[in-house]
Amino acid sequence: MHAPLPEIMPLRVGIAGLGTVGAAVAGILNRQANQLAARCGRPIRVTAVSARDRNRDRGIDLAGYRWFDDPVALASDPEIDCFVELVGGSDGPARRAVETALAAGKHVVTANKALLAAHGLALSELAERTGAALAFEASSAGGIPVVKTLREALAGNNVSKLYGILNGTCNYILSRMETEGLTFDDCLKDAQRLGYAEADPTFDVEGFDTAHKLAILTSLAFGTKIDAEAIHVEGISSITPFDLRMADDLGFRIKLLGVAERTKTGIEQRVHPTMVAKTSAIAQVMGVTNAVTIDADAVGELTLVGPGAGGGPTASAVIADIADVARGTVGLPFGLPVSRLEQPVRSAMQRHEGGYYIRLAVADRPGAAAAIVTRMAEAGISLESIVQRRSEAAAARDPEGRSGAPVPVVLITYATTERALRDALAKVSADGHISENPQVIRIERE
Amino acid sequence: MHAPLPEIMPLRVGIAGLGTVGAAVAGILNRQANQLAARCGRPIRVTAVSARDRNRDRGIDLAGYRWFDDPVALASDPEIDCFVELVGGSDGPARRAVETALAAGKHVVTANKALLAAHGLALSELAERTGAALAFEASSAGGIPVVKTLREALAGNNVSKLYGILNGTCNYILSRMETEGLTFDDCLKDAQRLGYAEADPTFDVEGFDTAHKLAILTSLAFGTKIDAEAIHVEGISSITPFDLRMADDLGFRIKLLGVAERTKTGIEQRVHPTMVAKTSAIAQVMGVTNAVTIDADAVGELTLVGPGAGGGPTASAVIADIADVARGTVGLPFGLPVSRLEQPVRSAMQRHEGGYYIRLAVADRPGAAAAIVTRMAEAGISLESIVQRRSEAAAARDPEGRSGAPVPVVLITYATTERALRDALAKVSADGHISENPQVIRIERE
Repeated sequence: MHAPLPEIMPLRVGIAGLGTVGAAVAGILNRQANQLAARCGRPIRVTAVSARDRNRDRGIDLAGYRWFDDPVALASDPEIDCFVELVGGSDGPARRAVETALAAGKHVVTANKALLAAHGLALSELAERTGAALAFEASSAGGIPVVKTLREALAGNNVSKLYGILNGTCNYILSRMETEGLTFDDCLKDAQRLGYAEADPTFDVEGFDTAHKLAILTSLAFGTKIDAEAIHVEGISSITPFDLRMADDLGFRIKLLGVAERTKTGIEQRVHPTMVAKTSAIAQVMGVTNAVTIDADAVGELTLVGPGAGGGPTASAVIADIADVARGTVGLPFGLPVSRLEQPVRSAMQRHEGGYYIRLAVADRPGAAAAIVTRMAEAGISLESIVQRRSEAAAARDPEGRSGAPVPVVLITYATTERALRDALAKVSADGHISENPQVIRIERE
Repeated sequence: MHAPLPEIMPLRVGIAGLGTVGAAVAGILNRQANQLAARCGRPIRVTAVSARDRNRDRGIDLAGYRWFDDPVALASDPEIDCFVELVGGSDGPARRAVETALAAGKHVVTANKALLAAHGLALSELAERTGAALAFEASSAGGIPVVKTLREALAGNNVSKLYGILNGTCNYILSRMETEGLTFDDCLKDAQRLGYAEADPTFDVEGFDTAHKLAILTSLAFGTKIDAEAIHVEGISSITPFDLRMADDLGFRIKLLGVAERTKTGIEQRVHPTMVAKTSAIAQVMGVTNAVTIDADAVGELTLVGPGAGGGPTASAVIADIADVARGTVGLPFGLPVSRLEQPVRSAMQRHEGGYYIRLAVADRPGAAAAIVTRMAEAGISLESIVQRRSEAAAARDPEGRSGAPVPVVLITYATTERALRDALAKVSADGHISENPQVIRIERE
């Protein structure tokens, strides 16, 4: 009854990079061949591959594929129609291979956020010129179809804000710190042991991975040129178990968010640890899971939650892009012609408005806390809460009274500006009442 | 710098039905005309409309549109390319108009879940035959792009399960019953007053609206023919404040879920009030918001949360479909040719496996509870919890001991089959220990 489709015009796919994701893509394209051919109206066939080591066991049979040592040579192979770039890196072979494929009018599917954050616009222009697809669903939140949602499902909307948990490593560490009361260092070690964090974790835990993804999503959301340099980036390594306990007491959780927002002064892009209400949807996202919330005028608030990394989820997104190419759906990479993408007006971080959590190590002497609160008032900053807790260590040393050791004081402010807050904290510091740099965590209210 | 696009080949749109959604669609297409033209590579222009009353004030200027009293006449107008059906109803003018448009090769965009649940396959065949689009993102979860996600973003996946909160009215009522301790009737009245429920609420509160949406999503998820008659449907009108309090005590919330699942015996489709873990993502969805969770082999678990109804969100989905048509993205309505959609093997509800919450009104006499527990054991049903609470009224009447009034007993079972449970409850009933029909609420564990 289901007659095989005539094998006319299969989409010939070349995959560069056969790590976890590449092997998963090849495996699924093989396993789901009939299903995909029926869905796309034509077969999709992997015809050639490229990787560093031909002899590594990847659990897939390479016999049916032509082999290329060099991804750039694969990209220029006349017998592929679609080049899948899973090499990684913002420059070097990945960039050269993608440029080569696009210049030859070959469709490109990539999971490479670093490449797009750095060169997305130039590559889009090249794709527009040759009519090739440049598809990158897998680049921004793994298996979550946020690129398709922004580019297609919200075509009639004006987006006002987008924020999300875009790095599973950070969310895993923060989730475990919170639920088990562990330190950042202990959780990081566990994450590395379990394969959730790299040996050099800087790129993840200091927020750069989130920033790359945010740069791409900002462009899609607002129809603006990618402006990765404009992103204010802070990571999670300064977060302490005390901060997480205080957050819990005050009704918050701490998440590393990427936030892009149209403000009165321009487009604000920032990555930093954030206090979110425990009852909010984003606060429920624990472990390595990712989530993106989009506020837009017609639809209202839309949240997508799912796995942000890993072989299967990333391959799922890569294959969705390949299937679109096979169907002939070749959209503009960023939803608009590059000439129509606006140069974003950067909203300076100093002009950011919002509430703040501030933890200060305050000298345990009369009048210190009062002086700090006065400085805040002078700067026009209203406080929602003030919590002063002698540390357990200090209390143990001197259960009766003052120990001389600094006491943590936590302030929760109402909405104010970053500039006012930083100015007030500089004065507090100059006054000599605090013994460490203040911990400042922005609050995101819905 | 942004030269106006040459006005070649605009997509000419006719809108039938100018209620909240139709007016919002016309308004957005007008307001976002430049943006949409740039996104789609061609202008989208509403050229004709149809509604019941030409003179009603809808807040939009109808002067630029040709007027049709009859949606079928609009559907056959040679000067439209895309017919937007917002008339509603599974038969009558909506069906005739959609058939007319598709037969003439005109693209159709519709928000009409009743039409699709009843005639989706025949309409898809017609669309396939004439090469027209039949797009219905707005039919299934309002502003949530679940149709696009299933049809395109998950093209490489096998879906094993899909479940969701697909009716905002029910979720609003259950949320308020839970947070305010109100009865179903009181919440329904409020929902009607606020415009969240119809004057005749049966369609929403008895689960039929959810069932229509589920029928469509099941077909998309599993590549099966729509089988709306197979859906087991229960509504929320039997849920009491006591059930919600017990759920809370036991770590659950009650949600009306639509669930479609591949089981060992076939495709199970069911709509019923469901106990979900308070910590689950779906439990966080409160008020009129909708949510859909998809379990699929490559991506894992994906959850989409957003507004499931209302003018703006529904218009957002309608416009996404129109934009796809304008771009030339004309996919198969259910993702596969109708000839490739499988006839689903129905999994009978009696074979459903899962845990259950059972509330019994048990005669307040020695041995009654023990006899019930014995019946459960005989049927091979293991109990996770047994909670016996004398009602406050009974306790007030007779603070010292037995009052003779029935006592609510709640049982939570481990996984068992619907058949075993129903058999056991029939015996309990025949034993004469209970004075009302048992309340049975299925538990969904993640």
